[in-house]
Amino acid sequence: MTGFVSFVGSGPGDPELLTLKAVDRLRRADAVLFDDLSSGPILSHARSGADMVAVGKRAGRPSPKQDHVSRLLVDYAQGGGRIVRLKSGDSGIFGRLEEELVALRDAGIPYEIIPGVPSAIAAAAAAGIPLTRRFTSRRVQFVTGHDASGELPPDIDLNALADPMASTVVFMGKRTFPTLASALMDRGLPPHQPAILAEAVSTPHQQITRSTVTDLADRLAQERGDQPALILYGPLADG
Amino acid sequence: MTGFVSFVGSGPGDPELLTLKAVDRLRRADAVLFDDLSSGPILSHARSGADMVAVGKRAGRPSPKQDHVSRLLVDYAQGGGRIVRLKSGDSGIFGRLEEELVALRDAGIPYEIIPGVPSAIAAAAAAGIPLTRRFTSRRVQFVTGHDASGELPPDIDLNALADPMASTVVFMGKRTFPTLASALMDRGLPPHQPAILAEAVSTPHQQITRSTVTDLADRLAQERGDQPALILYGPLADG
Repeated sequence: MTGFVSFVGSGPGDPELLTLKAVDRLRRADAVLFDDLSSGPILSHARSGADMVAVGKRAGRPSPKQDHVSRLLVDYAQGGGRIVRLKSGDSGIFGRLEEELVALRDAGIPYEIIPGVPSAIAAAAAAGIPLTRRFTSRRVQFVTGHDASGELPPDIDLNALADPMASTVVFMGKRTFPTLASALMDRGLPPHQPAILAEAVSTPHQQITRSTVTDLADRLAQERGDQPALILYGPLADG
Repeated sequence: MTGFVSFVGSGPGDPELLTLKAVDRLRRADAVLFDDLSSGPILSHARSGADMVAVGKRAGRPSPKQDHVSRLLVDYAQGGGRIVRLKSGDSGIFGRLEEELVALRDAGIPYEIIPGVPSAIAAAAAAGIPLTRRFTSRRVQFVTGHDASGELPPDIDLNALADPMASTVVFMGKRTFPTLASALMDRGLPPHQPAILAEAVSTPHQQITRSTVTDLADRLAQERGDQPALILYGPLADG
């Protein structure tokens, strides 16, 4: 008998930002497939007999191939029982959800998607700013800072990202931000537009650094490493 | 002695989509100021002696003025104790958070922001679609469908919204969508781009209607009323 898969967004990292539904699905799971970034307190909601399977996404280290993860998920589900596929933040936001949905559909395995608190939303809350403002920020956008090759995606809409009346959150974009910022300033984004670097959001290691687009780009051009971080910029309210 | 305010995002409506932290803050609150859309089961986490204060945002009826809500919040906080300001979805996404933050800062009242599951994120999960896709949707955007006068905001970036490689969620935009869709198609959005109308997301009355941009615009041009609903369009995966 085929199993049932619950895709569960675990939120940004703080175990208290799990939803009640996420806790319920973890408690009832026969197996939990989780990214290595998931924290111990989140995983501890699973019962002691559940299979706990780490499937990748280690910060700073190579990840297993996505099709391997999808195959593993299908294998577990075909073994029957309740499977939780735990993804950080919300599964549908830069979580490679599509590939796993397609694999389950192809295999005829039923599933549900439990939404979570996206890390971008938690970053704004931690910084104390609303992402929308009544007259100055009527649009919010999330964008990835790299494509499969690790570079800035060549086909992103730079004009949309340069709009000074939108609040933007760049995911996994520390390394490419200097290039992006330069392209955006060429398209009219003010160099002194506020920018925030949000690292390890909602964890004990959280760091929120307030800057401007041009100063943050200069700083990141000097740095190495691509630890998980979000970059926010736009008409962000002060503090 | 001045109180402390917790802005708490209650999620899209399903009481199980509250975070553990939201439940904790509700349990410890001396007063809860909530929008009338908040459901009974969510409010029932508050202890029986807490002041429960409805402050507006009734679907289809005029809302109290925002400055009245902000003043009421300041008054409660100046009375001392733990105040929860409960907002549906996430407070920072089209939740008029800024006005209330400014009022608290002006009055010297401390606060925290607890992020919640945004209704747009829950709508995509309910529809079974990821908002990002690896090669076809590298940008996600949320936009409001009306300004203070109830019309389509005149200063939104229509080119950004017409990008066929972004997934877009329009908040409170049922009434203005025919006008918006026409402007977007003029700017190159394919008329048959998939669109989804998501009503009463994550409640027992949830309705998810799959359509296209042009067909949904035609349908909404015939309808009256502006019940809470979200419109999603973009390179949305099927089913």
